Amino acid sequence: MGEIDERQGSRPLSTRRLEVRRFRGGELGVVDDPDLVATEEPFEIRVGYSRRDGSRAEEPVSVTMRTPGHDEDLAVGFLFTEGIIHANTDVQSVVARGQRAADGLINVVRVELTPGVSVDFKRLERNFYMTSSCGVCGKASIDAVAVQGQYDPGAVDFRIAGAVLGRLPGALKTQQSVFEQTGGLHASGLFDAAGTIVALREDVGRHNALDKLIGQALLRGELPLSRNGVIVSGRASFELMQKSKMAGCPLVVAVGAPSSLAVELAREFGITLVGFLKSDRFNVYSRPDRIL
Amino acid sequence: MGEIDERQGSRPLSTRRLEVRRFRGGELGVVDDPDLVATEEPFEIRVGYSRRDGSRAEEPVSVTMRTPGHDEDLAVGFLFTEGIIHANTDVQSVVARGQRAADGLINVVRVELTPGVSVDFKRLERNFYMTSSCGVCGKASIDAVAVQGQYDPGAVDFRIAGAVLGRLPGALKTQQSVFEQTGGLHASGLFDAAGTIVALREDVGRHNALDKLIGQALLRGELPLSRNGVIVSGRASFELMQKSKMAGCPLVVAVGAPSSLAVELAREFGITLVGFLKSDRFNVYSRPDRIL
Repeated sequence: MGEIDERQGSRPLSTRRLEVRRFRGGELGVVDDPDLVATEEPFEIRVGYSRRDGSRAEEPVSVTMRTPGHDEDLAVGFLFTEGIIHANTDVQSVVARGQRAADGLINVVRVELTPGVSVDFKRLERNFYMTSSCGVCGKASIDAVAVQGQYDPGAVDFRIAGAVLGRLPGALKTQQSVFEQTGGLHASGLFDAAGTIVALREDVGRHNALDKLIGQALLRGELPLSRNGVIVSGRASFELMQKSKMAGCPLVVAVGAPSSLAVELAREFGITLVGFLKSDRFNVYSRPDRIL
Repeated sequence: MGEIDERQGSRPLSTRRLEVRRFRGGELGVVDDPDLVATEEPFEIRVGYSRRDGSRAEEPVSVTMRTPGHDEDLAVGFLFTEGIIHANTDVQSVVARGQRAADGLINVVRVELTPGVSVDFKRLERNFYMTSSCGVCGKASIDAVAVQGQYDPGAVDFRIAGAVLGRLPGALKTQQSVFEQTGGLHASGLFDAAGTIVALREDVGRHNALDKLIGQALLRGELPLSRNGVIVSGRASFELMQKSKMAGCPLVVAVGAPSSLAVELAREFGITLVGFLKSDRFNVYSRPDRIL
């Protein structure tokens, strides 16, 4: 069975071609064939900042698995939804250091903070314990996020017609490119009140797809997302609600099911949470007043 | 919109009942109705161990989100697949401290190590950086795991008929209980060469479902899993391959797609990796010699 083909040619980095043995039909006919799979690769985010004496320093803050593409958006989105940066003016530059080493891809992005912007790395550690590890109880997590977030999605006056929501799954699928080829990616989309998907990101990690969307919006100065909803291809988890709160988004729509804690957070934050979205039906778990 | 109903009655803890507004049909008729969602709650794993002077100490090692149920299996499975414990004789007892506090559930499990068993907590920290954070490059991660694992799935002589694999999705669905109700859970199943699913676990976290399976097998003295395959309801990620390697399992079957790194690890470990499993077709990404 062939090794992964490293000659990527013009293929996007988000997929890789490799040899696969296909079993087909009642007789399980066998063919060897190239196939595309979604790329999953490690990604390190570093922060460059000023020490008190003015000299520059660097601190690694996260290593995650992700699908390559929109790496700068991912890095900035991650730092924002974790409460480490608070505005696009906090970011001086984003430098990708992606390079192909002999033993695999090493992907590093350094986010250079604007001189004068400070990061409390002790708080950052606690923050990671609280968020990627989610805290010891839901209540503690809710408080941690509620204190951090600068936006209040509960106060946002956003309305959308139920029939418009029903058209979203089709629109999402039409725009998903890599998923069509590999079946291996989560998608997050940003849509407006007319049901137009204005941005879409895909990733092996559901959180990454949303961080990419939010990072792009931050860099463009489009936060808070008070005129948009977020649609996710899978289920609605705790962390997706946290990130949506940080971005000030009043509506989260999941094609799949929500978890109990996702519902709890949606109600706490005043976010409208829709689950099991199909063309002719869906459930609303919180703030149904925004659905006409 | 009603708060989450805390009167669980006889319902299992893995689901919660709450009020939901349902939109149905072309006219989007609206009804308010109770609905079940999969429970997602924080879970802390602590390790009790002996200091050099013989006194006992405790160290928190992980906080994760999980669906309640089989918590002891989850704790032990996590410690094993992370390379912190190596056999069931390392475990003296597992004490659940689940308690319902005023502001939410606090779920803590303390795994008491057998006196004399030592844990290098510094190595443990590095290990977490490498695994839940996955290392800076795939190669480094592969090495980290390969060094740790005591089993070699590549050397396991296990064969299974392709037609038997085709019957697994139906068998998995029949046995999935919570998923049927909520649509919100990942499932991991353990099956034998005849295609019988001998154990099944469900969780909001895909890694947790597999850790629950492996933890149960460890506590029963059933490792390595050299006479079994693992089936997962979703996609095959990097971490599922790592855990399967640690458990010595020669066959991993995913209903969904594999990622590029999952394929890379499967080939490195000599694990047979099957993806896109349907009743009459599937793809084999590594070691197809085990499929008859």
